[in-house]
This record gives sequence, structure tokens and C-alpha cells, in this order.
Amino acid sequence: MELLDALQWRYASKKMNGQAVPEEKVERILEAIRLAPSSMGLQPYTVLVIKDAELKKQILPVANNQQQVVDASHLLVFAAWDNITPEHVADYISLMAETRNIPVESLDQFKAALLRIAGRSAEENFQWTARQSYIAFATAIAAAAEEHVDATPMEGFNSAALDELLGLKEKGLRSITLLPLGYRDEENDWLAKSPKVRREKDKLFVIS
Amino acid sequence: MELLDALQWRYASKKMNGQAVPEEKVERILEAIRLAPSSMGLQPYTVLVIKDAELKKQILPVANNQQQVVDASHLLVFAAWDNITPEHVADYISLMAETRNIPVESLDQFKAALLRIAGRSAEENFQWTARQSYIAFATAIAAAAEEHVDATPMEGFNSAALDELLGLKEKGLRSITLLPLGYRDEENDWLAKSPKVRREKDKLFVIS
Repeated sequence: MELLDALQWRYASKKMNGQAVPEEKVERILEAIRLAPSSMGLQPYTVLVIKDAELKKQILPVANNQQQVVDASHLLVFAAWDNITPEHVADYISLMAETRNIPVESLDQFKAALLRIAGRSAEENFQWTARQSYIAFATAIAAAAEEHVDATPMEGFNSAALDELLGLKEKGLRSITLLPLGYRDEENDWLAKSPKVRREKDKLFVIS
Repeated sequence: MELLDALQWRYASKKMNGQAVPEEKVERILEAIRLAPSSMGLQPYTVLVIKDAELKKQILPVANNQQQVVDASHLLVFAAWDNITPEHVADYISLMAETRNIPVESLDQFKAALLRIAGRSAEENFQWTARQSYIAFATAIAAAAEEHVDATPMEGFNSAALDELLGLKEKGLRSITLLPLGYRDEENDWLAKSPKVRREKDKLFVIS
């Protein structure tokens, strides 16, 4: 399994060297995100891919000055839908009918189930879309590792300020996580040579 | 990237054939879960691996009678810590010191940061541990796919009833997701031959 070697290889790089990730590698990482599973298949998120140096510089203070934000060539922002709307549901049903070449009406029952979910409170829906975005996020981390591209998963940033800066609220989105893509600066990254810390199997799993 | 083919191959099997997944494949899937990243490296979850047929049968009604629960040879239950306690932090700090062969005291600053996080409300901590468990969950889905093992991600179950059945509350855990591992019943699974539905790249990503 290529994934196991990749997960052994990866870590959350604390210092990147500024080298750009080739576009074909980024494309494969984005394709993995696109193929990632989500509940009901709804993909209730948007992923921003920020290459613009000026914009990354503006994000830096909002992200506790974590330098990987600017030393990465591509900064991914995982932004979850702040609610699930009837329009979201309708768009998804259309896409499904088109992809599977079936009449929209054949999906009425599935559509009703989605609308029941959408009928929960905005906050409940958001907590759910946020969790879905973690699946896409984790898939991106795995994909980057298989490409031997360093990726530093980040939750430590001011989400409200980033939403403001990127105009996400107007788009019905809320930022959840960041993932800078770049290359480790092996010499100057204090974490680069530290052994990975993980609980042993008998502590993490309960087998019955 | 092996992951892209695996993600294309996988889907959420609706009908499994009862064939058992070889233990060496399960071991590799568990190892991927063990290596999965988490915030601060805390791994704030336990994963239950249920092979016992009687227990799977008891879980079936709690999981809306989704038959994959019993047709899978291994049912994974991702259970997040219901809070982060000083004991959790102390255990993790010990493990880190031991793994990296450094004095515990050298981790005092990191420990203080973890204790600050632990000091949030139990509910806040749980929402966070739940999100972390989605990273492990997504990594397991990817790992199973690379092994060509079918895995059906499930959120649709009665979490409180499952916690009761498995005695999770006493262990400070709350069930988050299920992942039955098995093999698709190609002939009888209505979803087996349906094309995957995913938003196109220009709809899912915003590039700047």
C-alpha cells in the first residue's frame, strides 16, 4: 500500500523552502480532493487554491504568522457551506441525474431525504458540512504525501478574519482548515528529523 | 498516485457478499489509521474493530438495519474522546518524551499549550475530537480502497444507543462514524455500476 509509506514519510513541516510544487502534482492532489467521499455525496464545501503571493501575505497575520502560508507555493483553504439550501440540493440532484443519465424524477425520494437534512438548523448543518470538509482535507493530506509534497495541516488561524478577507460569508462559506503545499526545508525545520509520535496499536484499537 | 485509482475504484457499497477481509489487509488499514495525522498529534479517539458476529448482530438495529454491518467481516467504530483530560495530556507528553528520547521537562511549553486546549468546555473539546476522528476515518477509507477492500462510510446510526451498547460512555468515548470492511456483492448492489457523481473541478475549486 503506497499510502503507508506516504504516511510514514509525511509530517507537518514547520519550515518550507519556498520551492514551487509542480502544477501536475497539484492537479493530482486536487483530483483526489474531488474524488473524496462525503455523506450522501453532497461535497458541501469549496476549496480555494491560493497561489497569489500578495494574497498569501495578507493571510499570514490571520494565520498566526505561520510562515508556511507564504513559503508554500499553493495554499489550500477548505471552506464548508455555512448551511445547506434547497438550491444546493437541486444542483446536486441535477448533477446526479445528468451523470447517471436518469430522469430527475427518479431521484425524488433521495431529494426528499436531502431536503429533510437541509431542514435542520443552519448551525447543525454547518457542523455537519465542517465534518465533511475534514474528509476532503484528510484525503488531500494523503494525496500530497503520495506525491512527496509537504503539506502542513492547520487549524490555528482566525477563521472569522479569513472569511472576511476572502469574502467567504457572501458566498455562504466558512473557512475550516488550511493546507499549505510546498517542500520542507530539511536543515532549518526543527521537526524534520524528529521521530513520529503515535500511540501503539494496543492503545489505539479495541479488538473484539 | 495509487490513491487516485483507489478513489476511482471505491464507492459506498450498499450490499456486501459476506466474504472475509484477510487479516493482513486489515492490519495495513489499521496501521494507516494509526499513522493518520491529528491536531497537535493527540489522536483523541479510539477505534473499535468488531469481528464478533453476535455483537455485529446487536449493532444492526442501532445502525438502521444497514446490512453491511453484519455482512462486513470487520466493523470499525470511530469513537472520539468526549473531553480532553489532564491524564490524556500527561499520557501523550510521556509518549512523546519516550519516542523522541528527550526529557519530559523539555516539553513543558507544549504541555501547557495542550492543557490550555483541554481547558475549554467538554462540548467544545468533543466537537474538536470528533473532527479529528474524521481525519482518521477518511484515512481508513483511502487505505481500504488501496487494498481493494470495500468500506461503507456510515453516519446514519443511533450514536447514543451504540455508546450504550458498547459501554463507551464509561470509557469517555462517543461513537462518531462506522466503517464496515468487506467485499461488494457486485450483482446485487444497485450502486455497484452507477457512475460516481462529483462536481467538476471548476465548481469545486476557486483558484487565485
